Amino acid sequence: MDINGTHYRTIWVEDDGWSVGIIDQTLLPHEFLIARLTTLDEVCIAIETMQVRGAPLIGVAAAYGLALALRTDASDKSLLEAIERLGATRPTAVNLQWALEKVRAAVENLVGKDRVSAAYAKAAGLADEDVSACARIGRHGAELIYEVAGGKQDQPVQILTHCNAGWLATVDWGTALAPVYRAHDAGVPVHVWVDETRPRNQGAALTMWELMAHGVPCTLVADNAGGYLMQKGMVDLCLVGTDRTTRRGDVANKIGTYLKALAARDNGVPFYVAAPSSSIDWQLDDGLTEIPIEERSPREITHIVGRNGTEVQTVEIAPSGAKAANFAFDVTRARLVTALVTDRGLCPASCEGLISRFPEHSS
Amino acid sequence: MDINGTHYRTIWVEDDGWSVGIIDQTLLPHEFLIARLTTLDEVCIAIETMQVRGAPLIGVAAAYGLALALRTDASDKSLLEAIERLGATRPTAVNLQWALEKVRAAVENLVGKDRVSAAYAKAAGLADEDVSACARIGRHGAELIYEVAGGKQDQPVQILTHCNAGWLATVDWGTALAPVYRAHDAGVPVHVWVDETRPRNQGAALTMWELMAHGVPCTLVADNAGGYLMQKGMVDLCLVGTDRTTRRGDVANKIGTYLKALAARDNGVPFYVAAPSSSIDWQLDDGLTEIPIEERSPREITHIVGRNGTEVQTVEIAPSGAKAANFAFDVTRARLVTALVTDRGLCPASCEGLISRFPEHSS
Repeated sequence: MDINGTHYRTIWVEDDGWSVGIIDQTLLPHEFLIARLTTLDEVCIAIETMQVRGAPLIGVAAAYGLALALRTDASDKSLLEAIERLGATRPTAVNLQWALEKVRAAVENLVGKDRVSAAYAKAAGLADEDVSACARIGRHGAELIYEVAGGKQDQPVQILTHCNAGWLATVDWGTALAPVYRAHDAGVPVHVWVDETRPRNQGAALTMWELMAHGVPCTLVADNAGGYLMQKGMVDLCLVGTDRTTRRGDVANKIGTYLKALAARDNGVPFYVAAPSSSIDWQLDDGLTEIPIEERSPREITHIVGRNGTEVQTVEIAPSGAKAANFAFDVTRARLVTALVTDRGLCPASCEGLISRFPEHSS
Repeated sequence: MDINGTHYRTIWVEDDGWSVGIIDQTLLPHEFLIARLTTLDEVCIAIETMQVRGAPLIGVAAAYGLALALRTDASDKSLLEAIERLGATRPTAVNLQWALEKVRAAVENLVGKDRVSAAYAKAAGLADEDVSACARIGRHGAELIYEVAGGKQDQPVQILTHCNAGWLATVDWGTALAPVYRAHDAGVPVHVWVDETRPRNQGAALTMWELMAHGVPCTLVADNAGGYLMQKGMVDLCLVGTDRTTRRGDVANKIGTYLKALAARDNGVPFYVAAPSSSIDWQLDDGLTEIPIEERSPREITHIVGRNGTEVQTVEIAPSGAKAANFAFDVTRARLVTALVTDRGLCPASCEGLISRFPEHSS
């Protein structure tokens, strides 16, 4: 997407032909800064500290991490260690394992420099695939928005989203926000209610930032507000992402997603989940018991980063010594999901629904 | 309750016999500071800016505001203007109107100094009544905790609360937290999951602060986390307050309460609402359409106060120019409330249930 007229992806190979450029997302919305990753270590740290985040982007970043590792040492041992290292950076998103597996398959029968160049090529291929998958999700999901718009006589379609499943969470376009961008670009009036998404405030910091940069009308609300908005008829549809989708359509997404899904059901508001193929874990059935949920540092709850004038500062917002717990994801049962918006089209959040779009997994 | 060994209420008449002392709750948990209110204006500002907040405490503060107004001018005109002025400070909590009405009734047939002293006496009486109502809520609600404790073999009873319905929200003891204090003081192991309660963070700033001061085990979580905790069986019961309870048992409480009630129902966790008599609006039936919901400044969403070392600072946490909406309360339907814990005992959240405890309102 464009930032001040310049097109950016969230990750790319620099002009030197090997180091990896990223937008450092820990500094947004306060500073727009590019970071350059040159080693496996730096990629692991970038994923762990969420300089890059969002399930699809994590996958592509990990793929480039393998390429950087192989560039230093193209041995089998180096490959396996790097896969293990990268695979342990964050537990919940399955795209990470998916991307590592894709690169492994592409390089395992090669040696030396061929292995390195194949890894770079695969990483670039995964990045391009992600862009095209997100564009397709945008096309399919936009139909849902057009349908609502038809009955609204130029009133904006009111969409609620949680966390950031925008272009910053992917390589470009986004998952949940791709349909929003597409509808907006097509001249269909939309307005997005953006959950701030504590504790890391990806909604305030990233979703608001990218929607505002693109000129999409949007309003920031506390995570607590979604139920009220839906009770009052102020939301036409919810649209969120997923870090891992099970075979039967359960989805793990940023903590708090489940609460919004409950409110949507209680108020008859459709709840859609944008699920790229890469987010589907065909090995798992029961999301609640089988998906590992990341627990992050309590400091993300007790402290917050903000601007004081031009200075960016970290302040403590809880009493000194307060104990805090920081679960990063929750699971929304398939029964609460109106439909999955996959890159192959919409489908019911169920085993049959998913298989109808992905028949190759029917066995 | 005690702070560093000294007993405090949240509001009192100072040694001069007329000015009103409060704990300035906008500065917690960073600073513990007493403010002295000397005029109607100062009381209105204290309520509007939430130096005093919490439905029961707002009621008592408003009563003292009338006393201060009458001290300057004891005329009917002054009385009516002060009632109107105070009544407009915050729209959602009904205790405010309730307390103003009580003082009005106590002074309307008096004149001059008698009117002033009667207003002070009534305000003091309402404060004492609030303390005793909260103590009774504590007694009744503690039974619910004891019941769960019986099956837990010394494992702590896990309680989730939202916002602050502790002693800081009342004159002493609290509503939702009164049973917690009582059970804790009785040696029954409890642990409280404290929603931080964005945007004003009353959970982090006030509930954590007062529970920690009293030594009750507690853990701060993001507002998004309650659904996850209940899905994972980590909550035995929810206990929250109410700013206005309708005749049929709908409750308006801090925004986000409704989302937790939905999660409680979805996971079979009992959801209790501590409702002092003063919170019941016998004039209203349908909470969703009839209770006015306060909308506060967007700045409460886009900015936050915290400590940087020893300095207390306000930082901006959203992109510059971000639009935000700040609805302060939501309504939880009676159907989602397991029982109301009133100062007269537990009752179903229904017209019949409430009338069984308050037969004088059966007409």
